[in-house]
Amino acid sequence: MARAPLYEEDRDLKLVGSRPLRPDGLEKVTGRARFGADVSAPGMLVGKVLRSPHPHARIKSIDVSQAMALQGVKAIVTKDDFNADSSDRNILTNVMARGKALYEGHAVAAVAATSATIAKKALKLIKVDYEILPHVTDVETAMQPGAPLLHEGMITAGMDPAPDRPSNIASRCEFGHGDVETGFAAADEIIERTFRTEATHQGYIEPHACMANVGPDGAGELWCCTQGHFMVRNTCADLLGVDVSKLRVTASEIGGGFGGKTTVFIEPVAMALSRKAGRPVKIVMNRDEVFKASGPTSSTVITVKIGVTRDGRLTAGEAELKYQGGAFPGSPVSLGAMSAFSCYNMEHVRTIGYDVVTNRPKQAAYRAPGAPMAAYAVESVVEELASRIGMDPIELRLKNAVSEGDKSSYGPKYKRIGLTETLEAAKAHEHYNAPLGPNQGRGVACGFWFNFGGQTCVSLNINIDGTVALAVGTPDIGGSRASMGLMAAEELGIGYDQVRTIIADTSSLGHNDVTDGSRVTFASGLATINAARDAIKKLCARAARMWGIDEEAVVWEDGHAKPAGENAGEFEPLSLAQIAAEAEQTGGPIAGHYETNAGGAGVSFATHIVDAEVDPETGRVHVTRYTVCQDAGKAVHPSYVEGQFQGGAVQGIGWALNEAYIYGEDGRLQNPGFLDYRIPVASDLPMIDTVIVEVPNPGHPYGVRGVGETSIVPPLAAIANAVSHAAGVRLTELPMSPPRVLRAMDAAKDAGTASKPQAAE
Amino acid sequence: MARAPLYEEDRDLKLVGSRPLRPDGLEKVTGRARFGADVSAPGMLVGKVLRSPHPHARIKSIDVSQAMALQGVKAIVTKDDFNADSSDRNILTNVMARGKALYEGHAVAAVAATSATIAKKALKLIKVDYEILPHVTDVETAMQPGAPLLHEGMITAGMDPAPDRPSNIASRCEFGHGDVETGFAAADEIIERTFRTEATHQGYIEPHACMANVGPDGAGELWCCTQGHFMVRNTCADLLGVDVSKLRVTASEIGGGFGGKTTVFIEPVAMALSRKAGRPVKIVMNRDEVFKASGPTSSTVITVKIGVTRDGRLTAGEAELKYQGGAFPGSPVSLGAMSAFSCYNMEHVRTIGYDVVTNRPKQAAYRAPGAPMAAYAVESVVEELASRIGMDPIELRLKNAVSEGDKSSYGPKYKRIGLTETLEAAKAHEHYNAPLGPNQGRGVACGFWFNFGGQTCVSLNINIDGTVALAVGTPDIGGSRASMGLMAAEELGIGYDQVRTIIADTSSLGHNDVTDGSRVTFASGLATINAARDAIKKLCARAARMWGIDEEAVVWEDGHAKPAGENAGEFEPLSLAQIAAEAEQTGGPIAGHYETNAGGAGVSFATHIVDAEVDPETGRVHVTRYTVCQDAGKAVHPSYVEGQFQGGAVQGIGWALNEAYIYGEDGRLQNPGFLDYRIPVASDLPMIDTVIVEVPNPGHPYGVRGVGETSIVPPLAAIANAVSHAAGVRLTELPMSPPRVLRAMDAAKDAGTASKPQAAE
Repeated sequence: MARAPLYEEDRDLKLVGSRPLRPDGLEKVTGRARFGADVSAPGMLVGKVLRSPHPHARIKSIDVSQAMALQGVKAIVTKDDFNADSSDRNILTNVMARGKALYEGHAVAAVAATSATIAKKALKLIKVDYEILPHVTDVETAMQPGAPLLHEGMITAGMDPAPDRPSNIASRCEFGHGDVETGFAAADEIIERTFRTEATHQGYIEPHACMANVGPDGAGELWCCTQGHFMVRNTCADLLGVDVSKLRVTASEIGGGFGGKTTVFIEPVAMALSRKAGRPVKIVMNRDEVFKASGPTSSTVITVKIGVTRDGRLTAGEAELKYQGGAFPGSPVSLGAMSAFSCYNMEHVRTIGYDVVTNRPKQAAYRAPGAPMAAYAVESVVEELASRIGMDPIELRLKNAVSEGDKSSYGPKYKRIGLTETLEAAKAHEHYNAPLGPNQGRGVACGFWFNFGGQTCVSLNINIDGTVALAVGTPDIGGSRASMGLMAAEELGIGYDQVRTIIADTSSLGHNDVTDGSRVTFASGLATINAARDAIKKLCARAARMWGIDEEAVVWEDGHAKPAGENAGEFEPLSLAQIAAEAEQTGGPIAGHYETNAGGAGVSFATHIVDAEVDPETGRVHVTRYTVCQDAGKAVHPSYVEGQFQGGAVQGIGWALNEAYIYGEDGRLQNPGFLDYRIPVASDLPMIDTVIVEVPNPGHPYGVRGVGETSIVPPLAAIANAVSHAAGVRLTELPMSPPRVLRAMDAAKDAGTASKPQAAE
Repeated sequence: MARAPLYEEDRDLKLVGSRPLRPDGLEKVTGRARFGADVSAPGMLVGKVLRSPHPHARIKSIDVSQAMALQGVKAIVTKDDFNADSSDRNILTNVMARGKALYEGHAVAAVAATSATIAKKALKLIKVDYEILPHVTDVETAMQPGAPLLHEGMITAGMDPAPDRPSNIASRCEFGHGDVETGFAAADEIIERTFRTEATHQGYIEPHACMANVGPDGAGELWCCTQGHFMVRNTCADLLGVDVSKLRVTASEIGGGFGGKTTVFIEPVAMALSRKAGRPVKIVMNRDEVFKASGPTSSTVITVKIGVTRDGRLTAGEAELKYQGGAFPGSPVSLGAMSAFSCYNMEHVRTIGYDVVTNRPKQAAYRAPGAPMAAYAVESVVEELASRIGMDPIELRLKNAVSEGDKSSYGPKYKRIGLTETLEAAKAHEHYNAPLGPNQGRGVACGFWFNFGGQTCVSLNINIDGTVALAVGTPDIGGSRASMGLMAAEELGIGYDQVRTIIADTSSLGHNDVTDGSRVTFASGLATINAARDAIKKLCARAARMWGIDEEAVVWEDGHAKPAGENAGEFEPLSLAQIAAEAEQTGGPIAGHYETNAGGAGVSFATHIVDAEVDPETGRVHVTRYTVCQDAGKAVHPSYVEGQFQGGAVQGIGWALNEAYIYGEDGRLQNPGFLDYRIPVASDLPMIDTVIVEVPNPGHPYGVRGVGETSIVPPLAAIANAVSHAAGVRLTELPMSPPRVLRAMDAAKDAGTASKPQAAE
């Protein structure tokens, strides 16, 4: 079915685009907001998880008898307390080890006791007989024949013919079009390089926390911090072996997620403990557990080869991407492979990805999963090619930038997009033309993200005083309550203050997909607009009843029902509040609803400019200036959009310069805490300048695109480009920590390959 | 607009009428259910209310300075912290005294502190300067000229001409038709008597409890035990002076309400304290506060006069009802006046009611508010008339019973009703014909209740596994979750176990009126059925999409979508689960919604038979046998219906025999606790036998009527009739406590008017 573009070009938006106070600000600043750990129940027990100290070990037996005998211990669960027939064996086995412990921190049992002290004591009394196995934590080693196998029977998927022996390569994927050999033959210059990135953590401040209250029949409630309480409900029902309807999950306020709270870890464990103990159970991870046993992103090894003509036409691009999924398949390598060349209109492009398992925690989504590493590799090479042919790096990108109608590197043709506009904005920005100081370099990079749609339900309830309660099912991780409120108020023609958006529990709305993929402002927004329009239809019908005229003779304008058409008659317009006040008499409460699997999400692009200064004595990098130019489609609440732009850049700075999971030879994580795993703090950062570009998405009435993820895609490359220019040597490994930068500079000096610092050019 | 009757006569109901396990049973038995006091939040303060020790006093000043200076006190509120422009001045002033304390226990200030000890200490430090005023706690004294006036400017409403001076009579109402003088002239026998009933308490086990978490902007959340969280939200918004949308109220599990939780007491106070303190505040009433400062029912004085012909035709009925509203207007006297003669088809009937204020706590609803006392008076006289003319009391009632098409004593004509059927059931019951023992008497009485409809919203959400989450907005005080689940499952054609009904918070659904008036099984049931039908329409549309045929060519039968009609094609029927599994691909989540102001509620009638034994030495009454015959329309879950029948009878037994608010000369309540205010316990009671009569309500697809309240209407009269027969003297005052019964028997003996005990007849 062909659908006309949704974008309402001539629409005059009154509220959308304004910057009202954030609705959760006061709650959060005054400590009133209730986060995951803030819910309690009478008789509640403390749950603690026993985790494997070994990166790889066969679990020969678990003896809980001594622990169960401890006074105050009310329940102990192991794998046998979960549904062996679960439809998602990977999640099931990650939540509680079955047969083998696959990484340091892998849950093997859990205790519920009357106090934390008793629970901890009980953990020590659980006797696990481990047979220690050889381990592998590095993606390339894991791919070698003869590497220790995590899953003994795993045959690589996506290969034809299928390999004849098992390996740690879970799957292979391939994307592209044209013939890269032909493309490279047409190139004047070709650069091929291999890049390495380390696993990083989303670094959310709030550890995973939940409180379960489940009966012996498996029916119950769960409160937790999550990006998707419907996902939590469905997954927990599956893992506990109960009907979905039996569980009701309420999402708490969330202290950061960034993709890391799009799956379950402790939630099914707390439910299993509660079911067994017959009492409420709270589990709160400590930071050590968050690092060792939640989901960081993949470490990667990516080889990129790109050809260019002397006049700046990119002729071919090829990439091989190796992403590690941790202990289970599911790295975002396909997203990396799909997005690697998504910014460029190339006739010949091919990407091949490998999803590799290792003895590390199962990776989880991290903001634009898979894309930043791919962009890091590609944009580093593009920048180097620009230098090689002596072309301004923005010019080179502009010359090859994708635009409407171009075939993307991952398949579909682009609709209206804004890459060129972000490049133009960057080029025109004062930053791009400002002088550089000594030891400074300037880097540029582009980034792309798909932006998702997906299943979304919204109910809009009109209160007796004409104010509105808007119930959405997607946890607010980046300001969506404000955006939804603005869109509802815009449609209804009432004040933003008159709408309060809340996150409904899983029983009060139809299924909502996780808050991820930058989908919420788009998809929940679309559902909100349509729920409001559904309500407006009913408001007009009520006005018609009040006037005694036909429903069709009433229109909604400026927050009022008005008679329209020749025969409608003369009536004073009725405000929403006036109609609401009479609702009881005219048929009862008025509500609007909308359920959808939202299509039409618009991809988005960004161009970042970074100035970095490298201390030649220590190799320490300081980002001195940073500008984000990104296409938001339409910025519903520009302050939040700017915040998203800034947040992505900042997380990228941490990833580029400092953050890394450091594993020892023993396969154990050496830095499981914020002292040794160093995320940027305010004093590490310049003010992040932002330019909101608005190229409307034709799939949304206001033109909205997702904005949350694209902003983390360019930073790794942009900073690497800046550092490389400043250091006079191409850096190909992240993080660009002082010793690594110093080593690279020294090596280049020794080899005589150091280029002139950019500032001196 | 004329509407065809909704009742689907030929419908074959598969689940409705069955007795599945109650969904909340396990939770309640295992202590997992979370009641009003079971919710907490970090940093939560304890709220305590300072209450007037005086029944009537002018508040000259309140000095909170010493209390505020106490370490740990975070906020103190008085009347000035509430919205003086509230639209409901009575509620506003009852929640926190303004100018005068009007009863012992009236709130004058409240404290939030870090502990209960500190809060209590702070209460003692608040200096209230009272000017003590004369008080009145008795309804007849309060009506006298010269009685102390509670509201100095109050002129009786409903009188023409309006009185020229203020009084404690808030309003006068009148109902009826015909001309009673003509009717009495046609009578062979006339009996006129005056009856007195005392104020009783609903006796719910769970005291009022709530936890508020409100910001300085007045936006926030409230958890509380209530029969109507939407009412709580709207009232609190009004009393705090904030938009309705600002507040989100969640109803806890409820430990009994019976009408007593249909208004607010501590909820706005907790919110005001929280707003002022900037921290969460919990208030839990103790039992003393529940008795002194929540809402008991009215004490009453009712004079009834009825005429009858020798052959048993009731010729006229007249009643004057004086109900006390406590400190504010609003007694249920009009409901008493409307329902007094509702069982009888009389040509001439008139009732006059007076709503009288006294220095007692503002009365609240108590199960069939106003009706049991009126029925007590009328049914006592009817029983006495039957004796007088020597007619079987059931025969007399049958002869005069209202039926379809009769004009009710309160105005409208009856639709299909079941009074005759309950009388026939009683007459045929083995109980009615069983022999009586020594000192025993048998009484019969009929009762009537309106049953309400009202504003109701339901959302029905279909989960990915085909199970169903049903969100209703009416707290479950008597099994409505089970009934809603049965009705949803019935419509959808799935198993009862596959539906879980939850009570949604105020932001997740449109407005729902309070759970009262026996309205929920009817109105929320109607909304549930229609929400299910809305979902079925969508399920059929999805099936059509899956098959590639027209929506109109799909019907829903036995839980499956089936192609229908000649051109539909041949397809295997699709189950709800099969369609749900494909929902993501066929358009997204599937949900059904329905918002209504439900009309068509069907009135209901009951006939009770009671055997009572009077100890001639002590006057102590023992109810030895009890049978309830009541019209349920259709019993959705018969076990709950029986429970409602039994519960009403038991509460009636307590009211008839033991319960009473006892006020001293000082205007203070002398028995504010369950030791001195004696509700019946199991050992006081016989098994209550039940007969479910099913005369379908034409206003509901399954014929459902309300069942919760009618059952408390006949007991006072039925027991009084039994006791009067056993004691040989007509008792006209409740409770029929041993001293009162003994006194009556002695007086009758002295006067020689004692009749022969029934058992010896």
